[in-house]
Amino acid sequence: MSVFSWPVRVYWEDTDGGGVVFYANYLRFLERSRTEWLRALGYSQEALAREAGILFTVVELSIAYRKPARLDDQLSVTCEPRMDGAASLRFAQRIFREEPGETADAPERAGRSLLVEADVRVACVDAKTFRPRRVPGFVVSAVRA
Amino acid sequence: MSVFSWPVRVYWEDTDGGGVVFYANYLRFLERSRTEWLRALGYSQEALAREAGILFTVVELSIAYRKPARLDDQLSVTCEPRMDGAASLRFAQRIFREEPGETADAPERAGRSLLVEADVRVACVDAKTFRPRRVPGFVVSAVRA
Amino acid sequence: MSVFSWPVRVYWEDTDGGGVVFYANYLRFLERSRTEWLRALGYSQEALAREAGILFTVVELSIAYRKPARLDDQLSVTCEPRMDGAASLRFAQRIFREEPGETADAPERAGRSLLVEADVRVACVDAKTFRPRRVPGFVVSAVRA
Amino acid sequence: MSVFSWPVRVYWEDTDGGGVVFYANYLRFLERSRTEWLRALGYSQEALAREAGILFTVVELSIAYRKPARLDDQLSVTCEPRMDGAASLRFAQRIFREEPGETADAPERAGRSLLVEADVRVACVDAKTFRPRRVPGFVVSAVRA
Repeated sequence: MSVFSWPVRVYWEDTDGGGVVFYANYLRFLERSRTEWLRALGYSQEALAREAGILFTVVELSIAYRKPARLDDQLSVTCEPRMDGAASLRFAQRIFREEPGETADAPERAGRSLLVEADVRVACVDAKTFRPRRVPGFVVSAVRA
Repeated sequence: MSVFSWPVRVYWEDTDGGGVVFYANYLRFLERSRTEWLRALGYSQEALAREAGILFTVVELSIAYRKPARLDDQLSVTCEPRMDGAASLRFAQRIFREEPGETADAPERAGRSLLVEADVRVACVDAKTFRPRRVPGFVVSAVRA
Repeated sequence: MSVFSWPVRVYWEDTDGGGVVFYANYLRFLERSRTEWLRALGYSQEALAREAGILFTVVELSIAYRKPARLDDQLSVTCEPRMDGAASLRFAQRIFREEPGETADAPERAGRSLLVEADVRVACVDAKTFRPRRVPGFVVSAVRA
Repeated sequence: MSVFSWPVRVYWEDTDGGGVVFYANYLRFLERSRTEWLRALGYSQEALAREAGILFTVVELSIAYRKPARLDDQLSVTCEPRMDGAASLRFAQRIFREEPGETADAPERAGRSLLVEADVRVACVDAKTFRPRRVPGFVVSAVRA
């Protein structure tokens, strides 16, 4: 299975006065990639909340910042899920900087810069009570495929 | 009536790669001051949504950026409300930079730097339908006092 | 000349507890569109700062929020520049919600929802001193084309 | 030594469409507490960058989200530093929700809700080159006191 990857451009809003992306903002990029991975399976989070009454919520994460991203950088944010019990998922995620002129369609390519590595545990919960719920079958199937 | 003012410190999260506060983030500061003005009247927005079923939502604003704020600046954000029909309020708001060693307790003092001026129209709406609702009496009374 | 338009997806990071996009975050979307308009002319802001020593900085804006955007909405953010003296530009910008299944390639199409209208004045300044600088010729040419 | 603690109020800007604080935004709260801890020692980050040519940059962190914070919550964000080699610090940080009517001056008090626990490694680097630099003596002294 190829690794899911989502392109992210760095804008002014993402940088801080040090001239690099503010450390919290990489978590926004990681979330976009997880959301798009889910959308690629055919589901939006909004639809899951409305139709199935569930939300995915981050319960724990670790992240290592290897090199900074800067304004106008073109990034690729990967997302490799695995099951973690019946009610949660773990995502291994990495953020790469694409060299100018390259495209994002080959996330494992040698020569790109690895900027960030993260391990994110996401629980499936009831959208109202925040109590644990089983991860929906279509997600389990996709993760195990 | 003295002008309501709320202190805001500038952190890394607020700045961008130009070394100054990102233009959208001043709107966060303006919102904090409006929220604290309401809290000073004895009401939180959370309580208004839960108990009265209403939200305040910005429908229109204009803002002029006179001078930039920078990391570690201590700001004062003023908030001068007036009624605008039965279902909305207008807030004249200004952001000042305090000089080091000064405190925020005298917002009209000469010698401070005016950084931002804004005029913000806020509608009172139903928390579920977003339909217009009358501004609650205690707010009307406070604005007219 | 066709109107420049840039697609923006709404993520969790953009929404607030009212279930809609937080009012300051539309300014992030507007900035992305202006940056991509400039990039479509062949220039990044990072390169302009490094090579020409200039920044574009917002000095004034007005914005009207017509309808709220929600999680997972697919938006189009338009950008129509005109010169405003020798050292600044004005951008008329609008944010539309695309209906599901539609693409962003026809920003003027009837039937889409207009969410936000804004008028943004941007000054060209020296990247170090923030003093006014003439708008570069290639931008002037593009605006007048 | 008592534990350093900094109060943070939750505003609309911090929440997301799930009605709770967006997971990346807790990192903003953690950073504010570290910055204020440094300021309590007599130094701003702006002054350190300007006078000593150094920045503190997060290189790694882990965080556990125990309970969500909500709009209008009054939080306390603690900060317990220790040295980690000559060029970096580790901060054990926790975020508590204060019960209404309580103040933030007793961070270890029983009965408060623990919302978030984090371990943050921060490197001292040259403000221009991002190369490692020794942690300044006044910080080392404060950490070891």
